[in-house]
Amino acid sequence: MTRDVRYALIGLGNIGRNLLDIIIHRQEAIAADYGLRFVLVGAADSSGAALSADGLDGADIRDSKQAGLGVAGISGVGRPGMSALEMLESAGAELLVDASPTNLQTGEPGLSCQRWALQHGLHVVAANKGPLVLHYQELTEQAHRQGVRLSFSGTVAGGLPTVNIGVRDLAGSGVTRIEGIFNGTTNYILSCMLEDEVSYDEALRGAQRVGIAEADPTLDVDGWDAANKLVIIANSVLRRPTTLSDLEVEGIRKIRLADLQAAQKAGQAIKLLAVAERQGDDYALSVRPTTLPADHILARTGRWDMAVVYYTDYMGVISAVIEEKGPVPTSAAVLRDMINVYVAG
Amino acid sequence: MTRDVRYALIGLGNIGRNLLDIIIHRQEAIAADYGLRFVLVGAADSSGAALSADGLDGADIRDSKQAGLGVAGISGVGRPGMSALEMLESAGAELLVDASPTNLQTGEPGLSCQRWALQHGLHVVAANKGPLVLHYQELTEQAHRQGVRLSFSGTVAGGLPTVNIGVRDLAGSGVTRIEGIFNGTTNYILSCMLEDEVSYDEALRGAQRVGIAEADPTLDVDGWDAANKLVIIANSVLRRPTTLSDLEVEGIRKIRLADLQAAQKAGQAIKLLAVAERQGDDYALSVRPTTLPADHILARTGRWDMAVVYYTDYMGVISAVIEEKGPVPTSAAVLRDMINVYVAG
Repeated sequence: MTRDVRYALIGLGNIGRNLLDIIIHRQEAIAADYGLRFVLVGAADSSGAALSADGLDGADIRDSKQAGLGVAGISGVGRPGMSALEMLESAGAELLVDASPTNLQTGEPGLSCQRWALQHGLHVVAANKGPLVLHYQELTEQAHRQGVRLSFSGTVAGGLPTVNIGVRDLAGSGVTRIEGIFNGTTNYILSCMLEDEVSYDEALRGAQRVGIAEADPTLDVDGWDAANKLVIIANSVLRRPTTLSDLEVEGIRKIRLADLQAAQKAGQAIKLLAVAERQGDDYALSVRPTTLPADHILARTGRWDMAVVYYTDYMGVISAVIEEKGPVPTSAAVLRDMINVYVAG
Repeated sequence: MTRDVRYALIGLGNIGRNLLDIIIHRQEAIAADYGLRFVLVGAADSSGAALSADGLDGADIRDSKQAGLGVAGISGVGRPGMSALEMLESAGAELLVDASPTNLQTGEPGLSCQRWALQHGLHVVAANKGPLVLHYQELTEQAHRQGVRLSFSGTVAGGLPTVNIGVRDLAGSGVTRIEGIFNGTTNYILSCMLEDEVSYDEALRGAQRVGIAEADPTLDVDGWDAANKLVIIANSVLRRPTTLSDLEVEGIRKIRLADLQAAQKAGQAIKLLAVAERQGDDYALSVRPTTLPADHILARTGRWDMAVVYYTDYMGVISAVIEEKGPVPTSAAVLRDMINVYVAG
């Protein structure tokens, strides 16, 4: 006996498309293990939208994207030019999945969609960081008032359950310090520089070739992506209302191969760390290149890893590391959030 | 505005006493962060029980235990000779916390109490492994039928959120392999043998001196504690009905210092691993001394660490490590479970 969950998806980039693929492949397992069947009743991308009360066909979406048409190009169900918000208003969904691109100026188009969804009693699962970085308090309070879930474990970082460990597994204990390698791009670059003995520029080009760095890598290499994630962690795990302006942020542009080699010779390593350090009743929040002892668990992360260390009062020191070789784990994190909305405990 | 949660506690050993201490120290934070106030309405240990609708005083319990009297010795509220089950039947609690000693033959006294609690609509939080190892299916199905929570994150292993990561953070993805260092005692012994260059017997004596090994260490050194934990993980994370007889189990008694040193020289390490390996539709389950490459995250664990590695299809490889220098993190894990029963998402 399965329960149908009608959901709407905004964003058909890597995260959205991989999510649809995983759901197709894992359909039987999800029904057997959780008694759930996810039915996509609306989707939106830059081309427009598509709507179907019976559920859109993931294969149709894949074909249409491959043909360069977008979801609006699917015959019968496509709606060229329809906005994500318009799609959501018509879709009759009970769950919104926001996999739209992170926009740190306006949070759009995700922010309007998340607001509409929460106001109308839909649950929200977000991989999109923008709305949370800009309006964490407003969105979480709205979700609480409406009695719906706003889940975002895929925002920090990839498939690593950083938010979940911090919020649920440390409940009741106090956090004294957090150290995170939250940005895959910069950990890849720094690891390559040292392991392959290449310059920053060469490592960046390599990262772009394998697709882990953007054509414009500023957000990653200047530390802003890691900073956004630390904002989300500070709000959710530390319960500290936080915006980007609370953080000191420095990226990796000034790091040279010689610096990394000197550190290695001294039994150390340089990593881009996001850090929350308790100071009295507050926390000092920063992202900066940091020298660590070589045997520190974060120093030992490789080019495909992200990781977090939680230092606590009663629960010892808990570390988590993920090795993820592409974007799929982020989509898997979105799926876990979708399932956990409906599965008790 | 706080909500009172009336709970009953069975077992006032390290786990129970440390739990009461943490709750006292974190009382304000728990009220502020979660809107909860845990009120102990009944407690039971080997002396008998104590009952108070207004809530027992943790300081009274501490004093009575220190005086060697047990909770039955507390004036006014003590009930000498009252069984844990009798206490539970009279306590008027909405939540049972089972921190009683693990008994792997009968599961008692915890098993009867957990059964009574679930049948009567109480939530259950368990640090006691016995009932789950012996009757996982029965207890979880009962909880599901009654619509109550049965939480047990503190059973595998200490404060490490092994169960929670496996059940919630991997939801929707498939697990291909699990490797765990789930027993602190044996990891302590093996680490000491190598680091301090001492024999197995000497390392065991050292472990007993610091309190991480029992006077009778059989359960730990013969691998049965790790096996019990793997049974719980197989049932909960892998959804595979499992009992101890499904596992191949070998402990660390035959490991000599020379073996560890030879491994180290070969760039390897020997650790007692609990392993679940997917084979077709099933999993092969075992606990045995295992040789690992020296740079494997489990090989690098120290004397106070426990850890798990989850290998998945869509979510990459997720590892978690805890450094815990005593029994307090297990109690902190019980507290997180207590809180999470009442906090949505």
